[in-house]
Amino acid sequence: MGSKALVIDKEINYTMWRKRKIEFWNRIWEDLEIGYLDKDLLGLLVLFNTDKNIYTLSSCSGRIVVADSTYPWSREETSVVFKKHFPVKTEELVEIMTKPAVRRMWVNVTGPIIHLSTSSFDYALKILSLAREAGFKHSGLLSFNKDKGYILELTTGVRVSNLIKEGNKIYLEEKYLEDFVKILNEVLIYGKKLLLRLYDTVEKVIPIQEDEEIMRFIEERGISIESINPRNILSKYINYL
Amino acid sequence: MGSKALVIDKEINYTMWRKRKIEFWNRIWEDLEIGYLDKDLLGLLVLFNTDKNIYTLSSCSGRIVVADSTYPWSREETSVVFKKHFPVKTEELVEIMTKPAVRRMWVNVTGPIIHLSTSSFDYALKILSLAREAGFKHSGLLSFNKDKGYILELTTGVRVSNLIKEGNKIYLEEKYLEDFVKILNEVLIYGKKLLLRLYDTVEKVIPIQEDEEIMRFIEERGISIESINPRNILSKYINYL
Repeated sequence: MGSKALVIDKEINYTMWRKRKIEFWNRIWEDLEIGYLDKDLLGLLVLFNTDKNIYTLSSCSGRIVVADSTYPWSREETSVVFKKHFPVKTEELVEIMTKPAVRRMWVNVTGPIIHLSTSSFDYALKILSLAREAGFKHSGLLSFNKDKGYILELTTGVRVSNLIKEGNKIYLEEKYLEDFVKILNEVLIYGKKLLLRLYDTVEKVIPIQEDEEIMRFIEERGISIESINPRNILSKYINYL
Repeated sequence: MGSKALVIDKEINYTMWRKRKIEFWNRIWEDLEIGYLDKDLLGLLVLFNTDKNIYTLSSCSGRIVVADSTYPWSREETSVVFKKHFPVKTEELVEIMTKPAVRRMWVNVTGPIIHLSTSSFDYALKILSLAREAGFKHSGLLSFNKDKGYILELTTGVRVSNLIKEGNKIYLEEKYLEDFVKILNEVLIYGKKLLLRLYDTVEKVIPIQEDEEIMRFIEERGISIESINPRNILSKYINYL
């Protein structure tokens, strides 16, 4: 034991950072075209990117996933049986229940998770404080890298990880399946409402410093900000229950 | 929209920060005396505090909680029916199942959560990278404050949030209750193993800069580091299954 120096250079390589911003920005529109984009997110992603000091990374608006895996958080050996970013129907779960489980079958409902990068620590702190204000209580700065920037994860505590079956053992009482699905949807929508709250909170502050290139892109493409506002997108099922 | 300045002073008020370190440090030993301390944590808390630039805040080694609440993450209106930091017995859950649920009864198993503060951003990044290396994949910097420091949360993805009952509806198939409890314990222990891995990872690097006051405290109290090493504390149930 003793004293060692510990100094990390926190200066951003802005050229590289900017290059990444444009790559991720273009990917949003490519994903949208091929139907890959989680559309509930679009308004929020655009909003963040209108600031010169922010870009967004892969994110999720909240989803219901059925996984066949030892643990609900397992990644490597997980086989995703079902995945949806909007409410499910009882029949869909009934169908899944008839399938054999190799390991264990879990249903995971998760709230929204937004990943983004800022070009300064000040910006990172500002975004974290906005996120917390909007109910994203588990948000944090994950890492720092000269090229990638200050990487943030904005998350809520919204989560259900429920065991359904293991081999032939069905843990979930089937006669209450309909009520169970109702609760899963309720949890999903709870998360979507937090997404909306984040949008409303961020919109009051961001952009602090406008990104002209992004603004031009939006204008030239004729993108209507109102049409991608999550309030309008989510209205289709936010009163689902 | 336009350009606003955004500058946050990131210099620590070290006198205040130090005062808080000593307060939290003393609280560990008070909590231990009155039986409040989550003992599985003790070794890790001491280890972090041996560094002059780190202090620990309220943390958790992982636990099994039964809550009567609308959602598993609800805090305000939650009534905690049961809470334990070590494996549970089937009979304990049987007893809980007989109790009426006001809202919904959820069983939540959570992995370890460590809160700590560092006096510099460099330290914060170093700890985050160690945590990620040890499998604490959801770790992040939560906030910054001149007096409180750089506040970190080290967490894993280990979590189960399972619906048990709502009113008179029992969602969990009672004939598999024993198997279910076994899985809950397996998940709890998975988290405890990650706690151990964090200890082993941190021990190789921390302290970078020794805290003489803390070292003196440990010496004068005759605290044996080996006796609070989580490897020894956890051995009692890490092979429980």
